[in-house]
Amino acid sequence: MNGRGHSGLFLSFEGIDGSGKSTQARMLAERLSADGMTALLTREPGGSPGAEEIRALVLQGDPDRWSPETELLLFTAARRDHMERTIRPALTRGEVVICDRFADSTRLYQGRQGLRDTVDKLHNLMIGMEPDLTIILDMDPEAGLSRAKARATAEERFEDFGIALQLQMRAGFLALSEEFPARIRVIDGNRRPEYVAADIHATVMEALDARP
Amino acid sequence: MNGRGHSGLFLSFEGIDGSGKSTQARMLAERLSADGMTALLTREPGGSPGAEEIRALVLQGDPDRWSPETELLLFTAARRDHMERTIRPALTRGEVVICDRFADSTRLYQGRQGLRDTVDKLHNLMIGMEPDLTIILDMDPEAGLSRAKARATAEERFEDFGIALQLQMRAGFLALSEEFPARIRVIDGNRRPEYVAADIHATVMEALDARP
Repeated sequence: MNGRGHSGLFLSFEGIDGSGKSTQARMLAERLSADGMTALLTREPGGSPGAEEIRALVLQGDPDRWSPETELLLFTAARRDHMERTIRPALTRGEVVICDRFADSTRLYQGRQGLRDTVDKLHNLMIGMEPDLTIILDMDPEAGLSRAKARATAEERFEDFGIALQLQMRAGFLALSEEFPARIRVIDGNRRPEYVAADIHATVMEALDARP
Repeated sequence: MNGRGHSGLFLSFEGIDGSGKSTQARMLAERLSADGMTALLTREPGGSPGAEEIRALVLQGDPDRWSPETELLLFTAARRDHMERTIRPALTRGEVVICDRFADSTRLYQGRQGLRDTVDKLHNLMIGMEPDLTIILDMDPEAGLSRAKARATAEERFEDFGIALQLQMRAGFLALSEEFPARIRVIDGNRRPEYVAADIHATVMEALDARP
C-alpha cells in the first residue's frame, strides 16, 4: 500500500498504428505471469463490459455520426467505467494492470481535432488518474503503416491509413513524452519483438522496484 | 438574430414525475403551431438519433450497471448530440424549441448523488447553453405520484415511485427556481390542464416578445 491507496502498478502502452503495442502488451503480461505476478491485460476504448458497449456504439455506423465533442464524452464515459470496474479493483488487489492505450491516445487523437484543452479539463474532472508508467513504442511511420494495413479489420476506424497522419501521430506521441517525462518512456519498436520485449521488461521491473 | 446568434426561442419543461410536463409541452407546441409559429417538440434524455441510442444504452439493463459519474457522462454525451443535431439547428432556423427536461433535471437527479459541483463543471465545459425560459410545473407530490404510477411503463427507470423522493424532488425544483430566477418560472400544475396551458402560453408569449 502507498499514497495512491493501492499496491498495484498501472502501465499503459501507446504508439502509432502498427507500432506493436498490443503484441508487446501481451508479451509483457505473459512474462510477468511467468515471473509469478498477477498481470491484468486490458485495452481502451473498452476493457469492461459497459465500456465495450460504449466502444461499439462509438465505432459502429457512419464515422461522422458523432461530433468530436460527443465522441470525447462517450470515450470518457467508457474510460470512467473501465477505471471503476476493471482498473481500480485490480490495482487494489495489488495486480499489474497493462492497458493497451489510455488517456494519451485521447490527448492525441481528440487533441488533433482542436480539443486538447477540453480533453485535459474533462480528464481532470472525470478521470483524474494517470498510469504509473506509460511506454510509447516508437516506430517508423512507413513500417507501422504496412503492419497496420496487413491486419486491418472492418472495425478499425482508428486506423486511418495515411502516412501523413502516421507522421503527425508519431510526432505527437514524442511531444507527449516530453510533456510528461516522469511518466512516459519511449522505447524503440523498430527491432525484433523479443529485443523490444526485453527493454520493456527491464523498464517495468525498474518501475516495480521503485514503487513506494 | 440577436447576441445569441439565432432568432429562435429555447424553452424547457421541468418538474416531478406526473407533474404534466410532457402533456403541457405537447399542448404548447400545438398552440404555437396554431398561432402560426414553427415549434419543435423534443425531449431528454434523447431528442436526436444518436442521443436516443445513448438513452437506450443508459436505461436498459440493471439500474446499477453504470455508476452515477458514468451515467452523467453518458447523459452529457446525449445532450451534446441533441444540442448539436436538433436544438441549435432549429434555433438557427428561428423556431421555438420545446424540450421536455433539460439540464435542470441533471442538476437535480445527478446532484442528489453528490455530483452537483461536477454536473455544473461538466455542463459549463461541454454544453454551455441554457434555455431562454424554463417552466417548472409545480405539483402536489402525492397527486404526481398517482399520475406517474398510472402510466408507468417498463422503461421508466426515472420513475422511482416513492413519496419521499417526490417530496425531495419538488423541493429541489423550487430551489433551482430560486437559484436561476431570471430563467425559471414556476407554474401551478395542480389545476385543470387547460388553465395550466393558458398560464404557460401567456408566459411564453411574454418571453417571445422580450426576445432581443
